[in-house]
Amino acid sequence: MSKKVAVIMGSDSDFPVVKSALTELKKYDVPFECRVMSAHRTPVEAAQFADSAKENGFGVIICAAGMAAHLAGVIAGHTTLPVIGIPMKSSVLDGMDALLATVMMPPGVPVATVAINGAKNAAVLAVQMLAVSDEELSAKLVAEKNAMADGVRAKDAKLQEEIAGI
Amino acid sequence: MSKKVAVIMGSDSDFPVVKSALTELKKYDVPFECRVMSAHRTPVEAAQFADSAKENGFGVIICAAGMAAHLAGVIAGHTTLPVIGIPMKSSVLDGMDALLATVMMPPGVPVATVAINGAKNAAVLAVQMLAVSDEELSAKLVAEKNAMADGVRAKDAKLQEEIAGI
Amino acid sequence: MSKKVAVIMGSDSDFPVVKSALTELKKYDVPFECRVMSAHRTPVEAAQFADSAKENGFGVIICAAGMAAHLAGVIAGHTTLPVIGIPMKSSVLDGMDALLATVMMPPGVPVATVAINGAKNAAVLAVQMLAVSDEELSAKLVAEKNAMADGVRAKDAKLQEEIAGI
Amino acid sequence: MSKKVAVIMGSDSDFPVVKSALTELKKYDVPFECRVMSAHRTPVEAAQFADSAKENGFGVIICAAGMAAHLAGVIAGHTTLPVIGIPMKSSVLDGMDALLATVMMPPGVPVATVAINGAKNAAVLAVQMLAVSDEELSAKLVAEKNAMADGVRAKDAKLQEEIAGI
Amino acid sequence: MSKKVAVIMGSDSDFPVVKSALTELKKYDVPFECRVMSAHRTPVEAAQFADSAKENGFGVIICAAGMAAHLAGVIAGHTTLPVIGIPMKSSVLDGMDALLATVMMPPGVPVATVAINGAKNAAVLAVQMLAVSDEELSAKLVAEKNAMADGVRAKDAKLQEEIAGI
Amino acid sequence: MSKKVAVIMGSDSDFPVVKSALTELKKYDVPFECRVMSAHRTPVEAAQFADSAKENGFGVIICAAGMAAHLAGVIAGHTTLPVIGIPMKSSVLDGMDALLATVMMPPGVPVATVAINGAKNAAVLAVQMLAVSDEELSAKLVAEKNAMADGVRAKDAKLQEEIAGI
Amino acid sequence: MSKKVAVIMGSDSDFPVVKSALTELKKYDVPFECRVMSAHRTPVEAAQFADSAKENGFGVIICAAGMAAHLAGVIAGHTTLPVIGIPMKSSVLDGMDALLATVMMPPGVPVATVAINGAKNAAVLAVQMLAVSDEELSAKLVAEKNAMADGVRAKDAKLQEEIAGI
Amino acid sequence: MSKKVAVIMGSDSDFPVVKSALTELKKYDVPFECRVMSAHRTPVEAAQFADSAKENGFGVIICAAGMAAHLAGVIAGHTTLPVIGIPMKSSVLDGMDALLATVMMPPGVPVATVAINGAKNAAVLAVQMLAVSDEELSAKLVAEKNAMADGVRAKDAKLQEEIAGI
Repeated sequence: MSKKVAVIMGSDSDFPVVKSALTELKKYDVPFECRVMSAHRTPVEAAQFADSAKENGFGVIICAAGMAAHLAGVIAGHTTLPVIGIPMKSSVLDGMDALLATVMMPPGVPVATVAINGAKNAAVLAVQMLAVSDEELSAKLVAEKNAMADGVRAKDAKLQEEIAGI
Repeated sequence: MSKKVAVIMGSDSDFPVVKSALTELKKYDVPFECRVMSAHRTPVEAAQFADSAKENGFGVIICAAGMAAHLAGVIAGHTTLPVIGIPMKSSVLDGMDALLATVMMPPGVPVATVAINGAKNAAVLAVQMLAVSDEELSAKLVAEKNAMADGVRAKDAKLQEEIAGI
Repeated sequence: MSKKVAVIMGSDSDFPVVKSALTELKKYDVPFECRVMSAHRTPVEAAQFADSAKENGFGVIICAAGMAAHLAGVIAGHTTLPVIGIPMKSSVLDGMDALLATVMMPPGVPVATVAINGAKNAAVLAVQMLAVSDEELSAKLVAEKNAMADGVRAKDAKLQEEIAGI
Repeated sequence: MSKKVAVIMGSDSDFPVVKSALTELKKYDVPFECRVMSAHRTPVEAAQFADSAKENGFGVIICAAGMAAHLAGVIAGHTTLPVIGIPMKSSVLDGMDALLATVMMPPGVPVATVAINGAKNAAVLAVQMLAVSDEELSAKLVAEKNAMADGVRAKDAKLQEEIAGI
Repeated sequence: MSKKVAVIMGSDSDFPVVKSALTELKKYDVPFECRVMSAHRTPVEAAQFADSAKENGFGVIICAAGMAAHLAGVIAGHTTLPVIGIPMKSSVLDGMDALLATVMMPPGVPVATVAINGAKNAAVLAVQMLAVSDEELSAKLVAEKNAMADGVRAKDAKLQEEIAGI
Repeated sequence: MSKKVAVIMGSDSDFPVVKSALTELKKYDVPFECRVMSAHRTPVEAAQFADSAKENGFGVIICAAGMAAHLAGVIAGHTTLPVIGIPMKSSVLDGMDALLATVMMPPGVPVATVAINGAKNAAVLAVQMLAVSDEELSAKLVAEKNAMADGVRAKDAKLQEEIAGI
Repeated sequence: MSKKVAVIMGSDSDFPVVKSALTELKKYDVPFECRVMSAHRTPVEAAQFADSAKENGFGVIICAAGMAAHLAGVIAGHTTLPVIGIPMKSSVLDGMDALLATVMMPPGVPVATVAINGAKNAAVLAVQMLAVSDEELSAKLVAEKNAMADGVRAKDAKLQEEIAGI
Repeated sequence: MSKKVAVIMGSDSDFPVVKSALTELKKYDVPFECRVMSAHRTPVEAAQFADSAKENGFGVIICAAGMAAHLAGVIAGHTTLPVIGIPMKSSVLDGMDALLATVMMPPGVPVATVAINGAKNAAVLAVQMLAVSDEELSAKLVAEKNAMADGVRAKDAKLQEEIAGI
């Protein structure tokens, strides 16, 4: 079985968006743990989690945070595992603050940033990372990619009917 | 003598700008320590510094950082002292990334943010905080404010000569 | 008892947001006064308030304003007390106008800026400033910080149950 | 002779840009005074100037300021004369901060905002305002507009020669 | 009686916002005409209107337009009357497109720009321009400014009651 | 021979950038005229040019303008020929003002906008439009596209040598 | 009959906006095909479509995509037909991401970009391109332009009634 | 030996920045290939490279591109390997266009985005991905992280000397 993926969010209010990362990971049978930990409110837990993540069997850490989104960067400061950041849209600025606070990391401490609210893609990216050395997982990704293309083709076919009526 | 002000920068490349905070603090005879500590590269030192800042005699902590500027927020997560953030301009985005990453803190963990590259104002703000309970320092602030106004008046007078030639 | 905190808003329409600053100050038993005063519509009152704030027993002034948010800067021009600015979101631009108009103060006249609509944090920051020389208040801040961390931990525990069902 | 135009700048460092407003006013023989006054550093002078501007023979007030550009708004709070704001480009953000801080005025207190660093246009706009009731000035504006069009035509003619060589 | 104010909007969908300019002008008994004319869809009418505005008794022209808001600039190209631009918020970008398209005019052709959707202020500014040479109108502006300040004071008084219950 | 392309710029200062549009058109032997005409300073010429462009043998009009870039939109209001807009970078805002003022056209009056300072692409796009019904021109575009690909391949080959030394 | 217009969208969720392009094309009796094809999810189909578009009788290709909108650019890489890009507004950033991802194309591969969600204008622009060599289509464009102007005039007339009641 | 890392840039002008990714990969003895391939100018090569990257021994693909940066997204559409995107700063907009065009990928096709011009971090992230299943590489990352921390500590020590002279 592959290594685990950690999915950490800075606030439980992020869960409705973050949830789609979990369902995506489930689709690939990739084991995960999901936690609420804050870079600002429970910094000690967050640091400890990151410090011991590798030895606890995690291969990738996904962090979701909004506003001055420091969570992914702080976690990345405490581990050499790849860290994926999901900038969360909050009540102002449409997530642009979180995007810049997540992606503009200084040299030496990268955060692999996905789109604002891009929880599903964070999971896909985590699976892709694990699949680098896991042929079974890699095959699942190819199958899923093909299914996704089929989905677009089906929608294209359905559109032709709708257009007929214009 | 007043409590000390800590001035922390995320990279020594910030020093040319941060220096003006130190000279400003000197002007008020406020004791300070200045450190290079990184939220991402030396997170343990940064956390320890913040954890023990109060007992080590600090009253205010100034943090300067650029890009995804997490330093002030991380320090603020580890102390109840007021934390002042200076968003640093770096090679792209003119410091807008650092401004948003510094100021948009979540409820419960404020960072008192000053202008991009506003090192002098960070020092003035720190002195104002210390002066809340320090009449001597408060008097110095008033004197300095008056001197600043006189400076503007002198420039206004000098301008009149320049304009005469237009 | 600690010095008072002034909470000024540029328009009474800001009150639904600003209110959370008042409830936060109450939590710490910090005395406050709350006023509607406008940098543009009642500039004389605003200036007079700031001029006499220190002798009237105020230790910190919080200013909330939206759009071309000049209130905090104008107040800061008339006092050496620390001034905290809350940039208010208004009907366009998501508060970015107010953020820049509040934080980008010129050298010599700082405004301690918090997040857009960050009324609670403005209060916490004011308490932190007063607590620099007030051990009792400082202890309350530590207690509150611990309670906040416990809140995150409780949410983390509760999340584990929700996730079990995915 | 027409009423005077006041040209106020928040810092003497704005003069190299603001100067072109003065030369433009000279071109129209409109009398002016030029001052350095700061909304933050000499707020009392600024308020007094605005309070008495009308009785002192001013018809329009031009204000140039950068960063959190409060000068025009503060002046507008103290007079019913039309106030023109020039947002100044400063070392970061290309003047976007000054633009928003100048133009986004709340209902009741307008500032007639021109382009970032648009000192010449501020002067032209001031002349246009004075010319509403001044036929002589109005005629000069028409002449100048015609001259400007001729200038474009001359450049168009000259361009044809340059293009011949491509 | 004062000269007329023209209020032009690029689309009748702007009317709900622009209306407040008309009611404001009414308050001052300033005569006005209101038109729908588009810089892009009826450019000939727009140009003709501007060309003859002065001889038709207009003193100021207010233009409201959204998106790539060219109306004010185009009108300003055809007249030496002062032109006031209202950048309209439309379905995307919160009016930032209209603001930049209105305010960033090239040297020689100013547009006096007010806040996004700032229709009331456009009217106040127009009245201020007309009042430069109209003492009666000027007195009304002063009275209105005083009433506005009284309004703020009344709201401040009312707030004190609300706060008592916190 | 194909129809002519008009290349209009709002200011002769745009010529150093616009020039590359002319050299590109030359490469395709597409006839062109190049003019300086301003939407604000010579609006009558601009309108007349657009009104008669079709009957004067033009097939496409390219407009380059900076700041509140109204030229392309104004021209588009006076013709049914396709109008291509080049937003020019000017001294502030990096051309973002010109981009929004060019691209955000209201329904019914499109401007085909290319990248900021994208003069070469404006020319390529004009050629593509003319080539819709011109097989010879179409063949030249294909040849040029192939040459461009060969250029990339050559650079890729050359890069391999450089990398050998790392 | 004129060449066909291809209307491609990256996701069927774009259809409610894109639909207005189809109805506009219908108005001009311009034949079209409408497809769902994704630069990321069905890249092979998208490339093949573009490769063969010219020989399949298409004259212009319209592409609508949101977020990191690559569709128009990818299609443009595979054809020398003119490609029109519609940046789609999605759930965050108001379409600014799609605008920049569509318009900022590198030299040699232009995308004719219209406003965010500007589907109608994309169709008008496509018709204008086809009309360069099609007098009948050109006449329809003129008729439509006149009708549009009449529509504005009708709205202006109707507004006069509404205003009477103010 | 670990799988190879592909480093692709859209233009050879990106090489001065991208080079630091190569030197970083060298530091970890991770084999790499570096190519110039364009999503718009050599789309066929780019697609073929991505299609066969996995079977050719690549584990991760790094893509650097500026402006409407489509390269990373296009590559990601053709592979299930993790793709890292480096948004390149170009002559306008400071790389904000490239950042949004790289990071805002639609669901199903992630691009792991690093900071604007963040070439070194792209390499570190690639190494972290490969190290998920490679203990030797993982140990090197830890050693490097420790060395980086030591570097900060050394700079902190050196700063103390500089400050002594203030």
